Amino acid sequence: MKNYIIHDEWKIIEDKFRPEYNEISESLCSIGNGRMGQRANFEEKYSGSTLSGSYIAGVYYTDKTRVGWWKNGYPEYFAKVLNAANWIGINITIDGEELDLATCEVTDFSRILDMQTGILYRTFEATLASGKKVAVSSRRFCSIADDQIGAIEYSITAVNFDGNLTIEPYVDFDVENKDSNYDEKFWIEIAKETTAGAVYNIAETKKTAFQVCTGTEYKIIQNGNAVDLSNAELIQKEKFVSNIINIKTKEGETTTIYKYAANISSFNYEKSEILAKCKEAVGRAVDAGFESLLDAQINAWAAKWEESDIKIEGDIAAQQGIRFNIFHMNQTYTGEDERLNIGPKGFTGEKYGGSTYWDTEAYCLPFYLATADEKVSRQLLVYRYKHLQKAIENAEKLGFSDGAALYPMVTMNGEECHNEWEITFEEIHRNGAIAFAIYDYIRYTGDKQYLTEYGLEVLVGIARFWAQRVNWSEAKKQYVMLGVTGPNEYENNINNNWYTNYIACWTMDYAREAIEFVKSDDVEKYLAVANKMSLNEATETAKWADISEKMYYPANEEMGIFLQQDNFLDKEIIKVSDLDKKHLPINQNWSWDRILRSCFIKQADVLQGLYLFEEHFSEAEHRKNFDFYEPITVHESSLSPCVHVILASKLGKEEKAYEMYVRTARLDLDDYNNDTEDGLHITSMAGTWMSVTKGFGGMRVYDNMLHFAPIIPKQWTSFDFNIRFRGTVLDVKTTQKTVTVTNHSDADLTVKVYGELVEVKGNSAVEVATKS
Amino acid sequence: MKNYIIHDEWKIIEDKFRPEYNEISESLCSIGNGRMGQRANFEEKYSGSTLSGSYIAGVYYTDKTRVGWWKNGYPEYFAKVLNAANWIGINITIDGEELDLATCEVTDFSRILDMQTGILYRTFEATLASGKKVAVSSRRFCSIADDQIGAIEYSITAVNFDGNLTIEPYVDFDVENKDSNYDEKFWIEIAKETTAGAVYNIAETKKTAFQVCTGTEYKIIQNGNAVDLSNAELIQKEKFVSNIINIKTKEGETTTIYKYAANISSFNYEKSEILAKCKEAVGRAVDAGFESLLDAQINAWAAKWEESDIKIEGDIAAQQGIRFNIFHMNQTYTGEDERLNIGPKGFTGEKYGGSTYWDTEAYCLPFYLATADEKVSRQLLVYRYKHLQKAIENAEKLGFSDGAALYPMVTMNGEECHNEWEITFEEIHRNGAIAFAIYDYIRYTGDKQYLTEYGLEVLVGIARFWAQRVNWSEAKKQYVMLGVTGPNEYENNINNNWYTNYIACWTMDYAREAIEFVKSDDVEKYLAVANKMSLNEATETAKWADISEKMYYPANEEMGIFLQQDNFLDKEIIKVSDLDKKHLPINQNWSWDRILRSCFIKQADVLQGLYLFEEHFSEAEHRKNFDFYEPITVHESSLSPCVHVILASKLGKEEKAYEMYVRTARLDLDDYNNDTEDGLHITSMAGTWMSVTKGFGGMRVYDNMLHFAPIIPKQWTSFDFNIRFRGTVLDVKTTQKTVTVTNHSDADLTVKVYGELVEVKGNSAVEVATKS
Repeated sequence: MKNYIIHDEWKIIEDKFRPEYNEISESLCSIGNGRMGQRANFEEKYSGSTLSGSYIAGVYYTDKTRVGWWKNGYPEYFAKVLNAANWIGINITIDGEELDLATCEVTDFSRILDMQTGILYRTFEATLASGKKVAVSSRRFCSIADDQIGAIEYSITAVNFDGNLTIEPYVDFDVENKDSNYDEKFWIEIAKETTAGAVYNIAETKKTAFQVCTGTEYKIIQNGNAVDLSNAELIQKEKFVSNIINIKTKEGETTTIYKYAANISSFNYEKSEILAKCKEAVGRAVDAGFESLLDAQINAWAAKWEESDIKIEGDIAAQQGIRFNIFHMNQTYTGEDERLNIGPKGFTGEKYGGSTYWDTEAYCLPFYLATADEKVSRQLLVYRYKHLQKAIENAEKLGFSDGAALYPMVTMNGEECHNEWEITFEEIHRNGAIAFAIYDYIRYTGDKQYLTEYGLEVLVGIARFWAQRVNWSEAKKQYVMLGVTGPNEYENNINNNWYTNYIACWTMDYAREAIEFVKSDDVEKYLAVANKMSLNEATETAKWADISEKMYYPANEEMGIFLQQDNFLDKEIIKVSDLDKKHLPINQNWSWDRILRSCFIKQADVLQGLYLFEEHFSEAEHRKNFDFYEPITVHESSLSPCVHVILASKLGKEEKAYEMYVRTARLDLDDYNNDTEDGLHITSMAGTWMSVTKGFGGMRVYDNMLHFAPIIPKQWTSFDFNIRFRGTVLDVKTTQKTVTVTNHSDADLTVKVYGELVEVKGNSAVEVATKS
Repeated sequence: MKNYIIHDEWKIIEDKFRPEYNEISESLCSIGNGRMGQRANFEEKYSGSTLSGSYIAGVYYTDKTRVGWWKNGYPEYFAKVLNAANWIGINITIDGEELDLATCEVTDFSRILDMQTGILYRTFEATLASGKKVAVSSRRFCSIADDQIGAIEYSITAVNFDGNLTIEPYVDFDVENKDSNYDEKFWIEIAKETTAGAVYNIAETKKTAFQVCTGTEYKIIQNGNAVDLSNAELIQKEKFVSNIINIKTKEGETTTIYKYAANISSFNYEKSEILAKCKEAVGRAVDAGFESLLDAQINAWAAKWEESDIKIEGDIAAQQGIRFNIFHMNQTYTGEDERLNIGPKGFTGEKYGGSTYWDTEAYCLPFYLATADEKVSRQLLVYRYKHLQKAIENAEKLGFSDGAALYPMVTMNGEECHNEWEITFEEIHRNGAIAFAIYDYIRYTGDKQYLTEYGLEVLVGIARFWAQRVNWSEAKKQYVMLGVTGPNEYENNINNNWYTNYIACWTMDYAREAIEFVKSDDVEKYLAVANKMSLNEATETAKWADISEKMYYPANEEMGIFLQQDNFLDKEIIKVSDLDKKHLPINQNWSWDRILRSCFIKQADVLQGLYLFEEHFSEAEHRKNFDFYEPITVHESSLSPCVHVILASKLGKEEKAYEMYVRTARLDLDDYNNDTEDGLHITSMAGTWMSVTKGFGGMRVYDNMLHFAPIIPKQWTSFDFNIRFRGTVLDVKTTQKTVTVTNHSDADLTVKVYGELVEVKGNSAVEVATKS
């Protein structure tokens, strides 16, 4: 837990030099554009504590798996997000003394991320050992308008001396991943090119053989005049290219470097053309110039905010927190490329590797559904469709057959890359989330044709998996599912996880519905799919129906609760509030077996099911289960509180909802878990957004209609969220007294507020009283 | 599965050069003496496939733990058996051509381990590329009469040439462990000394800082005359010392090298004196000479065989198998040093590291109880007593308190070094085996005072652990034990493992009995222990009694079976015989989750409990459980078949008993599991011994009396085992018709045979008819 970021509506402000928190600030102020991104590292050399990180979407490394004890079925590698070339670097030397904030006296330091525009600002004054003092200010961004481009403006003023200024803009591929399993470097140099004013460097990843060309051109302006670069010393070292320029400077004089960069990878172009494409992109940036690129950046972000902003009045910390979450979601994934997905750290760090967890479907999809064009969330679904064959192969490795599909726990390219048996092999509810996402997408967008085009195949593959994964229990005379790990990862290898059993049966039911729909929608397409998948409709659907009908669900009728798993009530039930605080978080204080046999829940499990399938259960069922499970939940997953905000809001538990909200909204900003230095919890940020919209806002879609049922925390004056729904753009503002639904589109829209039909005419607003 | 070892009563014979099986033969023909041991590597250079291994008891390395995903509570290191100096090496060069069997034509090769004497023989003829041919024969042993000493006789004959012979006897510490976690070498050079005829080398392990001095002196005899060594070239390289001697040889002439070696470690001496002690030991060997050392070796082994031999007539493969097992048990552990124990690979390989598993108590102890002086098995118990404080600390790391002790799963020095959560933290039945060993020792020896001297403290520590490890289930209104792994490691994190629950309660009962005994035996000692352990007798024993009384045991009354764990009957029950053979062994063909949710059992679990607590259960209970569990057991642990032999024999299932026996007796000799190259399954060898004595022999000790109830497989003419019991030496021979108990001691002895009292006078025999 930290509290050094200045509260501000739109900005993340570090207001003085805090080398001890540098890696945290580097994470928080990361910038990206869906295609590339980077941590807020310094441009000039820094010998202090730093985690250098520059990432290019889709470019990864298959690091050889490291385990203590091998288990059959483990993948050979773990796909790592790859630290790519450092293109921001500008070494500065003054009369032979290097500018390095770790060895200077630093004053007037600030690092500011302006979330409204996606621009990173930095200013400082540094006094060198010699007593010479410089003032620096920089601006930098990854263009969201042209996602190949990044630009830097770096100004340095000689405060108290005349002297020689040496400037070395560079591109460096000699970088490493801190989490490399075997201390290997992953890049091999392919080519480099250095001319006065421009450096280009091409490197290739080992094994995966991605090539990336990173190039920059730069200009130096002194006294309004461009410095002549023709005498630049051209430097080439192993995987490193630069120019060194020596110029004079005088007291009070400012020298400004404009560095324009591009990253072009073989993920998008032929290897033979990446150098040319990179030069083209850099040239485009140079031609446009810094101010013009900046204008485009500001406009592009303004458009994003129009669709996705949430305003909270009366609570600046909450306001900053929610915008921080939305900002990072928007710069991590833009939906431009169906091969990309949302990594757990986005472009802000390397940890956890991989790019795709079930987080995408369960937490991120709803955000993109409601804040971007439907093609953005459709891309997330198509990503899984394209991986169906790999999911079938993954299931085969684990002994399944006949086209059963198990999607991986963690993946970059459709292949499993995780290697903990209790997760990799057993946390199979992820398969259900992937099926549910199809339903959720169609529910929100109405695009039922998606089933015909892509959805059916995925549903059949997953339904087949469930049908093979259960077994008939002679003892229970019901189907059971043994040896799973549910969403609550503080239980492993359990039997009959209620959530998993439920979503498995739901998938089998939905797959049957999907078959019926596609048959009616496009019988030829249906026959083609059935043929492609060797679907034996009658036998298979009969089996699915039988399982769904005769599935066992652990429950305690007397208590009116579903049981997270078999024998859950054999545990000693202790409320978290009755646990001595010294034990928390238990994942840092308890050995794994102690966690497993305790009653404590890492994240919503039965409650995750009630959240997803809300309409299948009565309010009493919601309430009894919430009242039983919430007090024994430690929320040690960043994905837990949001579900609790949503359920607590529904049940009118405003205080509990607010308590949970606070826990999620500023998780990274205040470094709750002491791990922000590794990067941000990108996927849980979508959960924060859901907390406001689906939680406090009570937003749902049923029967092709938006529903709202806002409650407002007493700490807030108002909250106000922008969403899109089937072509309309809405704004829902809730104060302590009123709920105002504003329709920013021309078409009229009917919604329900607190269960009552409300018609909102085009370009007008309707106000109803807030329920308390 | 291989079948290349020639069947012989006393010898392990590899009768031709099989480079493809070299590492297997190296394991099979390993020699040792309890203090040191080595694989049957070649003396001369060998560039083919080989696993060099030379090991010194008690000298280990704490290799940094390697895991994929860290869990709280994991130890920082895994203690590895350490490959130490190669002291057997003799490089041979003929006219500049190296003798290397990988590059020669090899004929008349044999490698023979004579188990009767513990001597390793090798002979071969090798034709070099030049056409020159040499004949070599060697004899080598690790002296079991003087455990610091090893000796080699290596004779080389020039078959078809006159020429120059270069001989380089060396000691090499520049060795590695193949299973090093981070490809590190573990030895640092400390000192070396080379004179003509003698080389000494001292090295120290990193981190653990053990020092070992390995030294050798050698003589060379040609035509009956000692070769003058004064012109030997003295070689010193990094961690390597040697002499190089150039001599002439003539066609038909034999040159013999005698190499005497000693290994002295700081495990036994001050570092300052190991060089002197090493010289002293080598000097002792030189003074005695090869033949005299050989005589002592032969005599010492004869004495061991007198107490532990098993003869099987009519089945030479079974005869060779059982002697192979007994031989390795005897050379692995001698009981000389209470700080030593029985590693899973003994001195035959590095795999699995560590030195002590529960195998020691559950499988090895009965062997040493019945075949050696009682002080040998007492040392095994004292080993655990000395580790009690570490076991208490180990339990504290996992959240236990107040003197609860959890012995490690794998250890070298009392500290846990294993790192799989489902084993390290959950396979806690090991604690029960350590308690049971105390009972078993006293039952066999009658040495009840052991409780007073050492046993009580260990029992209290373990009973406390169990009392904290269970919890009260409100649902069952009984005590339960959640989240354990039983002896059947193909189930993880299960609830209420019947075996673990049972042995836990038994321990708590036995600890109460022990308290009563020690109070009556020596009340002052009792008060001292109670004080040392802060024992609150009344409260603690009441708690233990309450738990024991109200423990929950899963069972199915209708089927008359105990259930291995909660909900076991939810599994699909399939007999192994109904499983397509392509799936076996499942641990090489199935992913871990599939194994876990299957019904298949790796090794005896409920049946392990019936074996240990035989007298608590009726024959019907034995039969029903055996009939249920045996058919679903895959015996993929080398520790499984022996328990089944014992139970099948008891139940009169001779065929099943024989089938299981065959599986265990030649496990390594025939390389059943394709892993003999890694080393031998030392601890399971004791299980093979038990199969004959406790299985076919029906040997038990109840009420201070030996019981026998032999059955004999129809494939055998007779079997005959030697044992010791409370000062008498017995021989029990069973033919198809008679059981003859011979008493080789002066004192009379009363035993039971088939439940009838039989008095066997001193130095006489009694015969009864064999029951069929």
